[in-house]
Amino acid sequence: MDTNPLHQIMRPSSVAIVGASNHLDKMGTIEYLNLVNSGFPGEVMPVHPTEKEVFGKKAYPSINDLDHAPDLAVLVVPTSLVPEMLEDFGRLGTRYAVIVTAGFKETGDSGRELEQEIVDIASRYGMRFIGPNCMGIINTELPLNISVMPLKRLNGKLGLASQSGTYVAQTLSYLYDRGVVFSKAISVGNEANIDVVDCLEYLGQDESTKAIALYLECIRRPDRFLEVAKGIDKPIVAQYVGGTQSGARSGSSHTGAMAGPDYVYDGLFEQAGVVRVDTIEELYTIGWALACQPASKGRRVGILTNSGGPGTAIANACDKLGLEVPELSETTQSRIKEYIPPHASARNPIDLTFHIDMTPMTRYIPDILLSSGEVDGLIIHGIMDTGFFSYMMPVIEKALDAKGEDILKAMELKLDRLVEMPWKYDKPIVISTFFGREDHSTRTFHESCIPTFDSPEKTAKAMYALYKYANRRFGSRPVPKEDYPVPEEAKDIMKGLIQTMDSGKIALDEYTAKRILRSYGIPTTKEMLVNSMDSALGAARSIGYPVVLKACSPEIQHKTEKGVVHINIMDESGLKEAFADIRKKVPDSSVLVSEMVKGERELMAGVTYFPGFPPCVMFGLGGIFTEALKDNVFRVAPLSEDDARSMLISISASNVLGSYRGMDPVDSDALASILVKLGYVSLHFPEIKEIDLNPIIISGERPVVADALFVVEAWNGGK
Amino acid sequence: MDTNPLHQIMRPSSVAIVGASNHLDKMGTIEYLNLVNSGFPGEVMPVHPTEKEVFGKKAYPSINDLDHAPDLAVLVVPTSLVPEMLEDFGRLGTRYAVIVTAGFKETGDSGRELEQEIVDIASRYGMRFIGPNCMGIINTELPLNISVMPLKRLNGKLGLASQSGTYVAQTLSYLYDRGVVFSKAISVGNEANIDVVDCLEYLGQDESTKAIALYLECIRRPDRFLEVAKGIDKPIVAQYVGGTQSGARSGSSHTGAMAGPDYVYDGLFEQAGVVRVDTIEELYTIGWALACQPASKGRRVGILTNSGGPGTAIANACDKLGLEVPELSETTQSRIKEYIPPHASARNPIDLTFHIDMTPMTRYIPDILLSSGEVDGLIIHGIMDTGFFSYMMPVIEKALDAKGEDILKAMELKLDRLVEMPWKYDKPIVISTFFGREDHSTRTFHESCIPTFDSPEKTAKAMYALYKYANRRFGSRPVPKEDYPVPEEAKDIMKGLIQTMDSGKIALDEYTAKRILRSYGIPTTKEMLVNSMDSALGAARSIGYPVVLKACSPEIQHKTEKGVVHINIMDESGLKEAFADIRKKVPDSSVLVSEMVKGERELMAGVTYFPGFPPCVMFGLGGIFTEALKDNVFRVAPLSEDDARSMLISISASNVLGSYRGMDPVDSDALASILVKLGYVSLHFPEIKEIDLNPIIISGERPVVADALFVVEAWNGGK
Repeated sequence: MDTNPLHQIMRPSSVAIVGASNHLDKMGTIEYLNLVNSGFPGEVMPVHPTEKEVFGKKAYPSINDLDHAPDLAVLVVPTSLVPEMLEDFGRLGTRYAVIVTAGFKETGDSGRELEQEIVDIASRYGMRFIGPNCMGIINTELPLNISVMPLKRLNGKLGLASQSGTYVAQTLSYLYDRGVVFSKAISVGNEANIDVVDCLEYLGQDESTKAIALYLECIRRPDRFLEVAKGIDKPIVAQYVGGTQSGARSGSSHTGAMAGPDYVYDGLFEQAGVVRVDTIEELYTIGWALACQPASKGRRVGILTNSGGPGTAIANACDKLGLEVPELSETTQSRIKEYIPPHASARNPIDLTFHIDMTPMTRYIPDILLSSGEVDGLIIHGIMDTGFFSYMMPVIEKALDAKGEDILKAMELKLDRLVEMPWKYDKPIVISTFFGREDHSTRTFHESCIPTFDSPEKTAKAMYALYKYANRRFGSRPVPKEDYPVPEEAKDIMKGLIQTMDSGKIALDEYTAKRILRSYGIPTTKEMLVNSMDSALGAARSIGYPVVLKACSPEIQHKTEKGVVHINIMDESGLKEAFADIRKKVPDSSVLVSEMVKGERELMAGVTYFPGFPPCVMFGLGGIFTEALKDNVFRVAPLSEDDARSMLISISASNVLGSYRGMDPVDSDALASILVKLGYVSLHFPEIKEIDLNPIIISGERPVVADALFVVEAWNGGK
Repeated sequence: MDTNPLHQIMRPSSVAIVGASNHLDKMGTIEYLNLVNSGFPGEVMPVHPTEKEVFGKKAYPSINDLDHAPDLAVLVVPTSLVPEMLEDFGRLGTRYAVIVTAGFKETGDSGRELEQEIVDIASRYGMRFIGPNCMGIINTELPLNISVMPLKRLNGKLGLASQSGTYVAQTLSYLYDRGVVFSKAISVGNEANIDVVDCLEYLGQDESTKAIALYLECIRRPDRFLEVAKGIDKPIVAQYVGGTQSGARSGSSHTGAMAGPDYVYDGLFEQAGVVRVDTIEELYTIGWALACQPASKGRRVGILTNSGGPGTAIANACDKLGLEVPELSETTQSRIKEYIPPHASARNPIDLTFHIDMTPMTRYIPDILLSSGEVDGLIIHGIMDTGFFSYMMPVIEKALDAKGEDILKAMELKLDRLVEMPWKYDKPIVISTFFGREDHSTRTFHESCIPTFDSPEKTAKAMYALYKYANRRFGSRPVPKEDYPVPEEAKDIMKGLIQTMDSGKIALDEYTAKRILRSYGIPTTKEMLVNSMDSALGAARSIGYPVVLKACSPEIQHKTEKGVVHINIMDESGLKEAFADIRKKVPDSSVLVSEMVKGERELMAGVTYFPGFPPCVMFGLGGIFTEALKDNVFRVAPLSEDDARSMLISISASNVLGSYRGMDPVDSDALASILVKLGYVSLHFPEIKEIDLNPIIISGERPVVADALFVVEAWNGGK
């Protein structure tokens, strides 16, 4: 476990910082001041060529003048100085560094060379480093704060690894106002040596981290990401912003990232059990909710409010997310009615209506709800005490002729019973309030790790995450077996093919493609390849009418548009006509005689390749509307059976796979097996660059591949 | 214009308030204190049976003791007292009231009766009132503040009408922190007399209101809503929360609302040019952006940031919303490069990277961008001054041995050039910052009406709204012609039908349904109804093979499943076989001989009815996946041609209507015309309770209705 270098980097006993001076307009200075003032228990050594002291602490004129090798070196210096300084630290015996300095691969070719130089230096000295082009690291447990803002709260629960330094270092006041506290936070910068996957692994091992948040512009090692994520038994939340053209371009300027499309990342996250969010606010606040509340064991949400609008908005948002807001039993309603006004509703949402006394809301009703067995989690809107009155203060001071401070003190609610309830009942509580830290109850929730949101709808998303987490990451996520055998027939076909082809790309003919599929046990239409009318007649007899006739040659794409596909041939006369027609249009082509598979449901599957990614298996709706609807999902190969099954239920139109319009449910074992096997085909033969099985027709309940396209690429092939 | 009672209610010269006392734990008292302290220039008269004075102001023992009739009566009293007091005010000559008291129709049957009682009293005295079960009204222009919190800023620009009182009265501190200020705000409560549509009309007329926000749990008069909204030339933003089961139940407890499903409201909003949002935060902040910035004239967004992560997140969010983040021209990039560090990117996003000097960001670069002609709007992330340093203060004071206040004062940025730019260039600016009002630059943006968001992604949504508004609500929105003639044939068919049917519901046979459609000029398959083999043969000859044969009788539903549909009949022998088969299965049924229309694209249309709504025309994808995909949209009848066209492009799979897979584009005039006419069919014959045209087959480019179902309901019909 200690092989991950972050265990050392995040817990140094001495830190040298190069780039701190007595000038407050330098980032190095600000980071130095925060490091010194964070309560860091170790030694801090500023290095500066001319300053004798840096804000009262002795400065060393150069790295070589240091008394001893620091555990960690921090560089906030001009770009050109980095290689030499890193080398100096290496020579001195320092093994870990944080390189804040920018100007490397994110700037283009010369920066890329310079980055390679520091990678080589580190490798020579066995050094590991974060950055370059990063903002620093935070450990609120030690504490250690190498960032541009002070720590106001320690001992947080949310671990962050971020490809944006801002989200580690410049949002601390934002997070403080919202009650979110990091356990550890790492700005990874350009990831030249340590990447976000290393951070994920470290945060997975770190005991003080209860949930992990990732801000991502790309994942440089998706296969390793998947492996690491699957091994972590904590909620992982990710925001990925590289999936659009503009996002990818911006990310590439920012950290030199090579991004991939959203749908591939969606698949990867789904497979890895990672909750994807759309905004940095959700990354922090949903991450925080997952870090500090028990998971919701079911979909049933209780909503307690003193205001109808927010209650309705929460109920509506829960419903849209697939949570339930169950109407409470008569018994529970009658217990609640003791504490609410006569015209108020106890059905759920429980709406106390405008109500000055907060006791029912902060004590009695939460207790009734959480002990009822009728809800799995509780959302409360509208608890407030000093916030309301501090805003009202000018009016109230005047009215009462009293001192504001005394009034406020008297207003403070006792919330000690409420803030214990999530742990007492093992059910989450999430708070919605329009008041910030000026409100004593909001401050109390922050300090008690009850997640607090500044508007009602956000609580529903947090509760959904608390539910989804419980039902997903506690489930089994088997790693797919690695030793799937390569069928001999497929091996022979591919070997023969590559030996005889020129360098470049070719499409396989349909017959060959389907032979490969059948060798893996993937069901296709029964078929025979023929070159004469007589063999065609024989083939049709053996397959049985009705049959399909198609021209079959790698040269012929878009067969339907070219009129060389004849379907639903009922008898010998029809076959003769069709055969003659195909021969007339493409005289040299072989002809494929296939079984005519009937079924209204058409699906599709395939394999797609993205630079830097393992092959991705695709599954989706087939048929006429395919391109218009793009109802498809992706998973990284190899797939487990569970991965494949999750694909089947992840398409929007997944209910066509069930008992749909009087049809039989699809054999989902057979369909899932096609997807799993397709993954192995792609891994066994890296020469294959594209696979499309379209359509897969559901015949009765049985999926049958009716057409298949393989594209193979070879360089310096057999010839 | 002055017939809308809100012009009087929002601008009274005298207000009597019943329910204020000297006890601060009463809502009436709090509202009274805020009214008195808001700066209201008129007379305030507290009424209380026992208190002689209420916080220093003379109280009247009863309504009848008032010196004169106040312009406006405010009632915050026990439910049972409301009718008598309203009557007292009516007798006294007061014509307007705000009834804050709850306990009416939202509580059930007896409350509903009591509500009717006050409606009747008001009607007797010609009174108009807001409520009951509301929280009050705010006019920041007069000012007038009948709410539970003080006004800290006046003369806002956003008008709000809300079915939640909280969103008018209890979010003023929340809004203050976010820079949002109401022009007028109205809590409508149960809408017993004045409803949200009246408020919409009023806010449309109110000059100080520049954009309108609506919080909705239901719309009680959708037809009038549409009419009023179409006549308003200001952006309208709406949050609707009644569209789910839980939302509807909660809303009904809250304000006795009868809600409708989301898809109907989506259609209504689209038709009315209303921007729908999902959260109260968006309602306020996007409403505010629309109220105070010029519209964006195009999709092109410039992004200026000092931090890569937020810049990338904004670019990604813009892209997902359909905005563009264009790469800037070489010329513009080189002008920008004068002001940014060498390793920073000028491509767009322009990323200054971590940078202490804010001048490039607040002055030079915005000027270059907005004058370049290359962007239509600008999003800036990361401007800050005192916020950062006030959080850093403990560290800095110690380091500099200086007073915090002096340091902060010196930090304040001069932003006067920047905040003028939106008006100088007629292009919107939207700000993203992680700092709140503790930051002087955030405060400056609030006061200068530059919309400011607390995280990056939110700015993209605001910019999208500023763009969508420009491109939608400035376009023509013709009102559909009212005088569409009722075809004589349809009139005769329906008349005959209703005269002969029993009370209840019946389905029309397909032949009759299509005759009605054809009488409106809606294209259907050519067809003839026959009762003998000979007439069938004659019909087929006249229509031309291939043909379709179907049993045709109102009693036979689900014809395909019953095996009484034979398609693709090629010749007389096939026809004879099919006819015999149908006669065998349903001996008494007539048989429909239809043209066989071929086309891969199957669509559907229909009319659906929801309680309280005019008939809604539906359009969507047909075919096998219809129920699975639910890719359909709705509009309220009657439809304009534009409404119908907007339906065609609103389905997800709309590109199948273009040149799709080598097929011809659909004749969209013909398709739109079917939808418009369908609207008139439903309006002409209220007895029709359901219409389904499924499938509409696209034959070549021509839409043809291939099957049709009408359900008709009559009470005490002709028999």
